[in-house]
Amino acid sequence: MLTASSLVLLMTPGLALFYGGMSRAKSVLNMMMMSFGVMGIVGVIYVLWGWLMSYGTQSVGGIFNNPFESFGLSGAIYDAGGEWIEGLGAYPQIIDIAFQVTFAIITTALISGALAERVKFSAWMIFAGIWVTLAYFPMAHMVWGGGLLSGAEGSIAAAMFGVTDGAANTAPIDFAGGTVVHINAGIAALVLALVIGKRRGFGSVPMKPHNLTLTMLGAGLLWFGWFGFNAGSAFAADGLAGWAWVNTTAATAAAILGWLVVERIRDGHATSLGAASGVVAGLVAITPAAGALNPVGSIILGAIAGVACAYAVGLKYKLGFDDSLDVVGVHLVGGLVGTVLIGFLAVDGSVFFTDGHLGFGGFSQLIIQVVIAVVALVFSGLITWVIALAIKKTVGWRITEEAEVSGIDLTEHGESAYEGIAAGRFVTEGK
Amino acid sequence: MLTASSLVLLMTPGLALFYGGMSRAKSVLNMMMMSFGVMGIVGVIYVLWGWLMSYGTQSVGGIFNNPFESFGLSGAIYDAGGEWIEGLGAYPQIIDIAFQVTFAIITTALISGALAERVKFSAWMIFAGIWVTLAYFPMAHMVWGGGLLSGAEGSIAAAMFGVTDGAANTAPIDFAGGTVVHINAGIAALVLALVIGKRRGFGSVPMKPHNLTLTMLGAGLLWFGWFGFNAGSAFAADGLAGWAWVNTTAATAAAILGWLVVERIRDGHATSLGAASGVVAGLVAITPAAGALNPVGSIILGAIAGVACAYAVGLKYKLGFDDSLDVVGVHLVGGLVGTVLIGFLAVDGSVFFTDGHLGFGGFSQLIIQVVIAVVALVFSGLITWVIALAIKKTVGWRITEEAEVSGIDLTEHGESAYEGIAAGRFVTEGK
Amino acid sequence: MLTASSLVLLMTPGLALFYGGMSRAKSVLNMMMMSFGVMGIVGVIYVLWGWLMSYGTQSVGGIFNNPFESFGLSGAIYDAGGEWIEGLGAYPQIIDIAFQVTFAIITTALISGALAERVKFSAWMIFAGIWVTLAYFPMAHMVWGGGLLSGAEGSIAAAMFGVTDGAANTAPIDFAGGTVVHINAGIAALVLALVIGKRRGFGSVPMKPHNLTLTMLGAGLLWFGWFGFNAGSAFAADGLAGWAWVNTTAATAAAILGWLVVERIRDGHATSLGAASGVVAGLVAITPAAGALNPVGSIILGAIAGVACAYAVGLKYKLGFDDSLDVVGVHLVGGLVGTVLIGFLAVDGSVFFTDGHLGFGGFSQLIIQVVIAVVALVFSGLITWVIALAIKKTVGWRITEEAEVSGIDLTEHGESAYEGIAAGRFVTEGK
Repeated sequence: MLTASSLVLLMTPGLALFYGGMSRAKSVLNMMMMSFGVMGIVGVIYVLWGWLMSYGTQSVGGIFNNPFESFGLSGAIYDAGGEWIEGLGAYPQIIDIAFQVTFAIITTALISGALAERVKFSAWMIFAGIWVTLAYFPMAHMVWGGGLLSGAEGSIAAAMFGVTDGAANTAPIDFAGGTVVHINAGIAALVLALVIGKRRGFGSVPMKPHNLTLTMLGAGLLWFGWFGFNAGSAFAADGLAGWAWVNTTAATAAAILGWLVVERIRDGHATSLGAASGVVAGLVAITPAAGALNPVGSIILGAIAGVACAYAVGLKYKLGFDDSLDVVGVHLVGGLVGTVLIGFLAVDGSVFFTDGHLGFGGFSQLIIQVVIAVVALVFSGLITWVIALAIKKTVGWRITEEAEVSGIDLTEHGESAYEGIAAGRFVTEGK
Repeated sequence: MLTASSLVLLMTPGLALFYGGMSRAKSVLNMMMMSFGVMGIVGVIYVLWGWLMSYGTQSVGGIFNNPFESFGLSGAIYDAGGEWIEGLGAYPQIIDIAFQVTFAIITTALISGALAERVKFSAWMIFAGIWVTLAYFPMAHMVWGGGLLSGAEGSIAAAMFGVTDGAANTAPIDFAGGTVVHINAGIAALVLALVIGKRRGFGSVPMKPHNLTLTMLGAGLLWFGWFGFNAGSAFAADGLAGWAWVNTTAATAAAILGWLVVERIRDGHATSLGAASGVVAGLVAITPAAGALNPVGSIILGAIAGVACAYAVGLKYKLGFDDSLDVVGVHLVGGLVGTVLIGFLAVDGSVFFTDGHLGFGGFSQLIIQVVIAVVALVFSGLITWVIALAIKKTVGWRITEEAEVSGIDLTEHGESAYEGIAAGRFVTEGK
Repeated sequence: MLTASSLVLLMTPGLALFYGGMSRAKSVLNMMMMSFGVMGIVGVIYVLWGWLMSYGTQSVGGIFNNPFESFGLSGAIYDAGGEWIEGLGAYPQIIDIAFQVTFAIITTALISGALAERVKFSAWMIFAGIWVTLAYFPMAHMVWGGGLLSGAEGSIAAAMFGVTDGAANTAPIDFAGGTVVHINAGIAALVLALVIGKRRGFGSVPMKPHNLTLTMLGAGLLWFGWFGFNAGSAFAADGLAGWAWVNTTAATAAAILGWLVVERIRDGHATSLGAASGVVAGLVAITPAAGALNPVGSIILGAIAGVACAYAVGLKYKLGFDDSLDVVGVHLVGGLVGTVLIGFLAVDGSVFFTDGHLGFGGFSQLIIQVVIAVVALVFSGLITWVIALAIKKTVGWRITEEAEVSGIDLTEHGESAYEGIAAGRFVTEGK
């Protein structure tokens, strides 16, 4: 589990590279700083009140937990006798805490892709601290902490399908974060892109990725780290974890192929940006489903996600919102594809499978998957909208137009990424 | 084991960087795409028929297993009662599958280094799918799946040295893939380089690595991932895995020094390309031997491999084949060095060791090591040659001469790696 | 533990990137080669005599162990009966060896940051081999091998505070290497910077980092690898390891914020170099303390370290020593902050905590922490000074002034890092 936690933590630097490479050369540091800044602010907040707001015994209406139950983790690690408090698996709870903090960090960092090249670093840091508190921790509580979107007594699923032995008869499936992570971050990205507005020149000036080797490296590190995400979510190194691992690889491989085939047919070229994006689309879509599908089902899901997202990333130009690095097209769309397709492909009772084999397993799973997806969309969308407007009216989101032209790295961070490389023979001294 | 699997999967993005940095700036994306494309195609194929062609109970002449025994892994994960099927170690077979798919991916990707800057992406993808099926899966079956090159009853070793209790009296040693991975990929690279021909200007125009920081990063990630390869091949986190870990590090360290010393003496400079290549040469050579040598033996093996490969990479200019990024010089030569030196250095009976101590342990191990190396060379070489010719006669391998000059990234993928970096102050907009 | 070992090994390529990005474009390969060279030389030495000089049963005055007790690890792996020899935890000693070699490598590599852009590669390699033998192995023995700076009978702590049941009544705390790694490398860096002298133009010519994306990537890999360092030092995947993991993340997050706040107030900009440096400062400071503080204490320690190091890196300009990439400002200062603050913040008896809760727990811990820090400073400083002078008088440290101007990559390694990238459209052939 600690290995899995370390892997998931690595995803955020991986994301910084993935996003950094896709931005322009004059904005890459700001892009990476948005991820590193989140590692700072969310890392501290999680210890102070984040874990307790997500997990604990004092749920407030199934929406969040009372953070003052054990502020600063004071009573969440060892008991009065000095013994480690037990967690979800057969190991100390502190290990759960290690695992969960990494999810809060990566989810918040994901949003930054919609805000490339135009947002004050201070505004982003304030947003990150508020959003993780008001949107992420409640979502984690609702889905994984026994709240409204879980399968526990008192959940929506329990109200819809009835309860047996304290659990809903049909429980929603979100293995590793289709709703909590990807739909949550994806809808937040969409709302922010709308509130904050477009970059100067969006749609008219070409804004090409400045360093695709960084983007591909980032995609590789994300895939590697994602095994912590998906296999770690089995909470043990057993058959389920292995199954999730193979499903993750199968879906991602299929999504690469799906995306590249779309590009080849539509544009004549299979691009490296497409391959890297296909990796992420596949990983996103399999996230909620990794423990519920068989490997062939995972290939089908991955291929559908790759194709769907390859088309979805074009929407921003048609609809005119500047989701700069495709958080909506990949995470929102991929998260929805994964969450909903579980209703068709889950081996233990879905539209196409029953008892591990092909066959009609009912519509209940599909219905509850759609319900949790919609609730996540509405909840996170509204919260994000309120926070975004509050920041707009107070500190303000945008850097100046001049700053945007000269480059956000220089104006917000006083740096430029590649000193001297452009000068040719690299002799910058004394000439 | 799942950690080991994740590490090995990371090797392929690591390889993409290693190769990408060694190519020219106009070809880096194509180089990386060859690895990412393999992750897509082999990832899908492995689930559908790859694992079953390698492992299973219906061997066809000791050469490959019947893939229809359980197409799409349908019966290879859990049994009719829903219990996980046991694998090689004391864990579910699905975990073996996770581990093995990563080996198939990296082996196929390795070959791409011989094909830099001149091959149609579609031809490469077709080749990858066919080669992994006809060359890799059979080799894995022959060596690790109880086939002709294993130590099982019915193997060549059994025919040569007799059988006791169902196993050959002297079994070939290939701990983690000297034959299956490195000799296999290396000879395929040589055959392809010969069939496809040289790059325009090879031997006259300098073709220097365009970004050695990428290459060194790639070498670092490969070393890191290789621990999954070698330590993971113990199939448990026990003393043997620790031994393989220490041997891997010792051999790699010695190979760096060996390569750098050759360069210093021969060329006057110890280069970073030499250090990165030394890392890989050492890792390749210790791969088959990591569980059979002691640490001092590993240092000797690593130093020999470093020196041998440092000289071997010059052969392509003398013999006139364009093994662009030295797959032959490093993987074929390093794989042969490692496989054969086991016959001299294995602690449990080799030319120089017997019963864990210095002493003459017989020639049998050496003989069987040479035999499996030669069979691997012939088998994989012939299969590759047939596939390569078939592709040459049908879709064709080469891009046009003009495309080669303007750069394969632009013509095959419609992209260039470093947009705007060369423009100096990075202000690309509105000017 | 093998995963932890692999993570720590990855830290050295991570460091190579961190340092490489901070150097100028004409020196990046030399910077990375200093790390890769250490992987070679220390990797070999550790197997031959390093582990035995640190650990074993024949201590020489509590300062180092007799390396001839088992030269080349011959008797340290398995016993006469072929059974694995047990190590510190409930696993074979070979796994301890795997873990410890990586610490020796990273510690030696850390020093190179003080020597950027002006030192002969051969002189560095010679220094690395001698320093690890005379300074690192003894420090590891003194602190972790039951020597003078441990809590064992015969240690300084035992002499100062008396002994109960063979252990000092107040034992020094160095969980994962505040003294052995960071103070040790930091003071060595300071001594070398003074002996070797400044780069040509230091203080007058700007020497900006040439590639901050590399530096941030390096910081990300260091954080990831550091989990092996800190969580692995619990020698088991238990509650203590989880505690160390969470403390590591909390302190690092707080250090990022601390550093960025200082920059924002002092300079007006929060920089990416500051974020990456903050990551390292936090990791350094929590290294000795990760198993002794609670998470809120770790946040406090991290924030103090971030602020202190952000100011400390400016000292070199005031005091006029060319600690090029801030090894002193980050590792020496961060290591001292962490080692000493344990005396104030350790939950089991320090100035502010007793029995796991707030309260006065005595000054003993603080005193012994200061003592081991001072002894480490003096011991390592003196040894380094002698080695540095010996090299100065014999092979010499510096490259020529002309070589410094044209760039050390070209003159020492015959390479330049970025061939053709600066040429714009990357068409380097036939023109």
